[in-house]
Amino acid sequence: MPEFLYGHWAVIEAMRSRRRQLDSLMIHERADKRGSIGDALTMADEINLPVQRVQRRILDDLAKGGNHQGMALRVGGYPYCDLEDILATAARRDEKPFVLLLDLLKDPQNVGALIRVSDAVGVHGIVIQERRSVAVTPAVVNASSGAVEHSQVAQVPNLVAAMRQLKQNDVWLVGLDVGANIPPLDKTDLNMSLGLVMGSEGEGLRRLVRDTCDLLLTLPMRGAVGSLNVATAGAIALYAAWSARSWQGWAHA
Amino acid sequence: MPEFLYGHWAVIEAMRSRRRQLDSLMIHERADKRGSIGDALTMADEINLPVQRVQRRILDDLAKGGNHQGMALRVGGYPYCDLEDILATAARRDEKPFVLLLDLLKDPQNVGALIRVSDAVGVHGIVIQERRSVAVTPAVVNASSGAVEHSQVAQVPNLVAAMRQLKQNDVWLVGLDVGANIPPLDKTDLNMSLGLVMGSEGEGLRRLVRDTCDLLLTLPMRGAVGSLNVATAGAIALYAAWSARSWQGWAHA
Repeated sequence: MPEFLYGHWAVIEAMRSRRRQLDSLMIHERADKRGSIGDALTMADEINLPVQRVQRRILDDLAKGGNHQGMALRVGGYPYCDLEDILATAARRDEKPFVLLLDLLKDPQNVGALIRVSDAVGVHGIVIQERRSVAVTPAVVNASSGAVEHSQVAQVPNLVAAMRQLKQNDVWLVGLDVGANIPPLDKTDLNMSLGLVMGSEGEGLRRLVRDTCDLLLTLPMRGAVGSLNVATAGAIALYAAWSARSWQGWAHA
Repeated sequence: MPEFLYGHWAVIEAMRSRRRQLDSLMIHERADKRGSIGDALTMADEINLPVQRVQRRILDDLAKGGNHQGMALRVGGYPYCDLEDILATAARRDEKPFVLLLDLLKDPQNVGALIRVSDAVGVHGIVIQERRSVAVTPAVVNASSGAVEHSQVAQVPNLVAAMRQLKQNDVWLVGLDVGANIPPLDKTDLNMSLGLVMGSEGEGLRRLVRDTCDLLLTLPMRGAVGSLNVATAGAIALYAAWSARSWQGWAHA
């Protein structure tokens, strides 16, 4: 089944990573060839990818109302990896595993944003459950600014089983939770083999997922509203963990 | 000029803070009275606020396409504060000033998200420039989940002049920037009188704004994409600063 990625960075990064089957680039028939469309056309030319000029309403349909910025890419499905691939990547880089696990997140914006931050901090892979969760849809690719085209995402039948498998590989599972008497994020040295587990919007961590964690930590909050979006909370936790690793792998320019 | 706030939390928090003139609550004529609409009706009843039942298309118009969740609130303009009010709040709480300055941000989603995090970490106030920047519009209120109805926002004629005024009050201005040889966020003890300055989407900090900062810090990035949304970057920096203050003011439940 072909998919249609849309939006500048989604299209560019999918062409750059070349991990999917690439069928054709579709651009708005009256698009200005300079700027971002020009970048996409140049890249398509370099890899001999067919280009089709199409009407705006076709792009609108393919993007299902998303912001396509005049371009779409017809591609094969997302190349999911296995849990073993994630651990192998950590080993190959000679780094302690750094994994993000998402428990039934529903909003492509949140999943995409979390994958974008995961890329920025050097997470080795992201784990999502097959059913009842967002998959790597074109909306997620767009929300990740294309980062997911370079990331490793394992889609597992059962998140708790995947957590147990990580534990057998000496990965510590830290759930981010809200509640009384949960210590704040920075009271634990996060410089360890880490699986950070984030709960879904509104619902938080499922009970069995929470019980399978080795440790729960919280993000302190004060103020009148005292709540954060899951993508914001996850971004803060991922950076805290990378900071604990002394920004390992950062090519300080 | 009346404004129309829309969406559950925007409406609830504006009624809860009672800082604006409140005119009336408008709800969808066929809305279910349970759940979030019920909460809003109960609150309106408690403060004797008139309620109007309106057609869905009226709410759609008032929200300009935003997600109104069946409700809107007709209110007076946003009650901006002065820079002095922000410093006075810090003094009253016996805390070192903690201020967020936004340099010409354009996207209401980003501004709202940053204000929501500011509330969560106990920032004393947010400073935005009057012209060429997003103001506290209903879209910002919605994106902040209503947090801005409890926050102090100073809208100043000139951001650089406001920065100089803060400096005269011994506030250190730290600009978050991207570039070579800028030290990472955690190499500086952020437990100080702090004004965190964030640049706009795409453009970053204006030159004069950057030059007026006492210090520039960066958020390290690695990975294939290596960029973060300004709201994400700001959230991470705000939490790093609050962590440096040992979570001051956090009512550990």
